[in-house]
Amino acid sequence: MAHALRLSRRGLGNVWPNPAVGCVLVRAGRVVGRGWTQPGGRPHAERVALEQAGAQARGATAYVTLEPCAHHGRTPPCAEALVASRIARCVTALTDPDPRVAGRGHAILREAGIEVTEGVCEPQARAIQAGFLMRVTQGRPFVTLKLATSLDGRIATQQGESRWITGAAARRHVHAMRLQHDAIMVGGGTARADHPALNVRGFGPVRQPARVILSSQKLPELPPEGQDYGPLWDLSGPIDHILEQLADRGITRVFCEGGGKLAAELIAADRVDQLLCYSAGLVLGQDARASLGGLGLARLADAPRFRLLETRRIGNDILHLWGRD
Amino acid sequence: MAHALRLSRRGLGNVWPNPAVGCVLVRAGRVVGRGWTQPGGRPHAERVALEQAGAQARGATAYVTLEPCAHHGRTPPCAEALVASRIARCVTALTDPDPRVAGRGHAILREAGIEVTEGVCEPQARAIQAGFLMRVTQGRPFVTLKLATSLDGRIATQQGESRWITGAAARRHVHAMRLQHDAIMVGGGTARADHPALNVRGFGPVRQPARVILSSQKLPELPPEGQDYGPLWDLSGPIDHILEQLADRGITRVFCEGGGKLAAELIAADRVDQLLCYSAGLVLGQDARASLGGLGLARLADAPRFRLLETRRIGNDILHLWGRD
Repeated sequence: MAHALRLSRRGLGNVWPNPAVGCVLVRAGRVVGRGWTQPGGRPHAERVALEQAGAQARGATAYVTLEPCAHHGRTPPCAEALVASRIARCVTALTDPDPRVAGRGHAILREAGIEVTEGVCEPQARAIQAGFLMRVTQGRPFVTLKLATSLDGRIATQQGESRWITGAAARRHVHAMRLQHDAIMVGGGTARADHPALNVRGFGPVRQPARVILSSQKLPELPPEGQDYGPLWDLSGPIDHILEQLADRGITRVFCEGGGKLAAELIAADRVDQLLCYSAGLVLGQDARASLGGLGLARLADAPRFRLLETRRIGNDILHLWGRD
Repeated sequence: MAHALRLSRRGLGNVWPNPAVGCVLVRAGRVVGRGWTQPGGRPHAERVALEQAGAQARGATAYVTLEPCAHHGRTPPCAEALVASRIARCVTALTDPDPRVAGRGHAILREAGIEVTEGVCEPQARAIQAGFLMRVTQGRPFVTLKLATSLDGRIATQQGESRWITGAAARRHVHAMRLQHDAIMVGGGTARADHPALNVRGFGPVRQPARVILSSQKLPELPPEGQDYGPLWDLSGPIDHILEQLADRGITRVFCEGGGKLAAELIAADRVDQLLCYSAGLVLGQDARASLGGLGLARLADAPRFRLLETRRIGNDILHLWGRD
């Protein structure tokens, strides 16, 4: 299952509106097939692994990070494909909360005489699939907020100069993170001031994330959707309404890159699931631009708190990742 | 020498106005004496190691992190003590820039027929003894600036509530850092607002650092010097004048704990040798208090930059240490 979980990560940011799943087929102690959800969401992980295994799937154990699907979509359900390939056993990490599946995948397998073990490595699978699960159960995507600041928490000089605060290694890491999200979101002020490209660069041809700009005012001319740019969505309204619209469009993971006003709005609404910080070795002073708008906190006890997940050096900057407390 | 350097660190913050030195005596491959500068600055490291070795010092090699002293102070010079104990060889890391020594320690040893090797592990010794060297050669102490902030670089709510932003482990680390400095320095605003104790707690009986408060206005009543509190110095004037006064009083390492105005003044004057940051997993927003006053930077290229020395988790906070770029 650990292997299947690692494979499943490859789909993050690439497979929306589908879940990023990993599948490993093991027969007599040997891996005979490996698969993960392919870009765009199809084929599913199980299909890829079964195709790789061919006749060797017979009698094998399938390790799948999510309950195999049971509904007829554009392809027949994976649960039926696993039955047809005559596997002996299926081990899964999570039950699919999608009402079209919700246990029916497991039931199809059991009815066919396949031994099913559920809930293996469930916490790890839940963390990787957080976006998909939140979209299905809460109707909103998983939100990562990025803060790339000076040591005193600033994102630009007083005049708005912000290129570059962090170094090349950290900026490249940002592109890797964009690649793992379905959409990149910025506020209108940032879009107007910085004309940001909001795409993934330096990783070859990839499925570009959707560009989401929150603004009720006129936006600058931005490049149209194409090979190098994802769809461009101009939304406005209360933050929860926007997140709901994104979920409706299939977005499971959104990466917010500012500015300070939008970041504060997300934090105040308790909609930041993960805070990704880059701190660069420079100081700008309190006359420079703050990374976060006002929160109007009366007491320290009211401050939104996060739990440290990781910290490490990246070039001459530090990267620190925080989750919900 | 690596062993001697480790020993020398034990004196940091405890031996001013003297340097923190380490000494190891090795005879026939065995350590026969170890010493470091004792609290208050005496006895010197060499004296302690020689006393431990006794007759075994004869024919030994002495590893000393600084050139042995050559001047008659309250005790006879260490160079003469090493000669009297009939060591065969002396390996040192640095020449003492103190004009009363400046090579004369090495000369005394050589004249007595002792083989002398200089400059071993010099960069490491220079880093540990930076405060002593700066005091002698530049007439100012080594300055560490502490910034303990929220993820958006804030040190207190709008109302000034600041206890506590960082966790217990980080706060205990601050006391360990105070212990390694000769003086703790804060601005008058911080002294008036927080009534800080400015002492070392939780490490048993120690030589308490001097308390330096920069203010031209009236200060709150603070505890007098005693077992739990170092001398209290109320200074004012331009920052370079203050650092010069501290060096004149024997201070080699000063730990600045804010507030934002003093921190900005030190940074603008290029007097921060080391920046010690603690970042806590909470956000306070731009209406909360900034960690640093204004720097009036016109361009990003003018921003003071630092080089990352270390980053690690401490409790649920992160610690990051930065040196001169």
